[in-house]
Amino acid sequence: MGKDYFSNRMTVRNFSDRRVPDHVLTDIIERAMRAPTCGNMQLYSVIVTRESAMKSRLSAMHFNQPASTGSDVILTICADFQRFSRWCELSAATPCYNNFHSFISALTDAVIFSQQIVTIAEMEGLGTCYLGTVNYNAADISSLLELPDMVVPVASLAIGYPICDERQVERLPVEAVLHFEKYRHDTDEDLLSLFRAKEEFPDNKKFIKENNKPSLASVFTDIRYPKEMNEKVSHEFIQLLRDKKFL
Amino acid sequence: MGKDYFSNRMTVRNFSDRRVPDHVLTDIIERAMRAPTCGNMQLYSVIVTRESAMKSRLSAMHFNQPASTGSDVILTICADFQRFSRWCELSAATPCYNNFHSFISALTDAVIFSQQIVTIAEMEGLGTCYLGTVNYNAADISSLLELPDMVVPVASLAIGYPICDERQVERLPVEAVLHFEKYRHDTDEDLLSLFRAKEEFPDNKKFIKENNKPSLASVFTDIRYPKEMNEKVSHEFIQLLRDKKFL
Repeated sequence: MGKDYFSNRMTVRNFSDRRVPDHVLTDIIERAMRAPTCGNMQLYSVIVTRESAMKSRLSAMHFNQPASTGSDVILTICADFQRFSRWCELSAATPCYNNFHSFISALTDAVIFSQQIVTIAEMEGLGTCYLGTVNYNAADISSLLELPDMVVPVASLAIGYPICDERQVERLPVEAVLHFEKYRHDTDEDLLSLFRAKEEFPDNKKFIKENNKPSLASVFTDIRYPKEMNEKVSHEFIQLLRDKKFL
Repeated sequence: MGKDYFSNRMTVRNFSDRRVPDHVLTDIIERAMRAPTCGNMQLYSVIVTRESAMKSRLSAMHFNQPASTGSDVILTICADFQRFSRWCELSAATPCYNNFHSFISALTDAVIFSQQIVTIAEMEGLGTCYLGTVNYNAADISSLLELPDMVVPVASLAIGYPICDERQVERLPVEAVLHFEKYRHDTDEDLLSLFRAKEEFPDNKKFIKENNKPSLASVFTDIRYPKEMNEKVSHEFIQLLRDKKFL
């Protein structure tokens, strides 16, 4: 496993009906809590959603994407400075973590923890899928899960036993992301060549055709992650950070 | 390895003089690029610092903490929407990722990628340490590494072969971070009991005494992560996001 697992892993969006036992889930989470954390503050929480009515409501907030509706469990991982701040208040200390930097610290902690859950779960034979939609309806998700102040959802994971019908998708060559000593400022030509294999990947060519777009890039800018949506989500997410007392 | 590694892992701050071969480093990074990523956009870059003069300058920006000065290599992992945006511009598409939501997406991608590097490196026998100080001098680090617009450092990793003289530190019990269906709103008493083992941990007791503080919590609020510093870093980091065109 070890070496090969990392090179061969892939996201799973199709799950079997097999249930993930509670003790397996708890064991994965407990082991993931050994992940690195800022000052050992463990600025995260995870909410398990598996009860049927809750799962339907939560899936709707993830636009009922099949990875969500078809998974056995959804984990919502939150940036959480509430537990730590309350402990401070109850311990002769005056916490001051209602600021942007503290949110970023908690977000980083929560994402490190999420990725540790992913790796452990996948090594145990489970499949996982990050639901990027967590940011799109973060306020509704917060209400549904009854998140208090200073707790904000930042990662959602659909988890279950996989139906293995997926193929690995393409990735950029390592040169694209790896820089030595200073950030390498590529020429236009060099930059385009880093994306060539991506553009040649058959599924991406299909993608362009299906969406009737002039280029793969325009599928991203016009359909998948367009300006209006990015700006709307930005606005709403900043408002949520204010409502939750981080700003 | 597999199962035990995750439960037994710990951060390493003391490194031997043994050099991490370049091909080992590149191999780890390439395998980490199979980590999950938002829409397969791979919104991250990593800058390797190992050349002596650059390493001294970068370490100074991390307050010359021993984990930094004593490591063989420092990796600075950046949230990077520059590469993707340039590709869009060169491909008949109009990118619009200069907003807060897009920064959070790139930050999340970069942290997932960082944690994948940590896990692979540690499983290969290397030691790693996140340098939380990356946020404190993010603007200086950006200048040193010549980061362009839409590239912001979000995680720093000191890496090298470990001198194994460390002990595992304490963690909260799994109940502290694990919630079922809805966020559990603990009573004061229940919350304090979750932190009891932490307060009883010998190193933490020593920590209180050394700092001459009334409680462990007040070591955090008054010394390690005080209000003035959190607010200063918040202000500067928001300014950097503006300078780098994310806001």
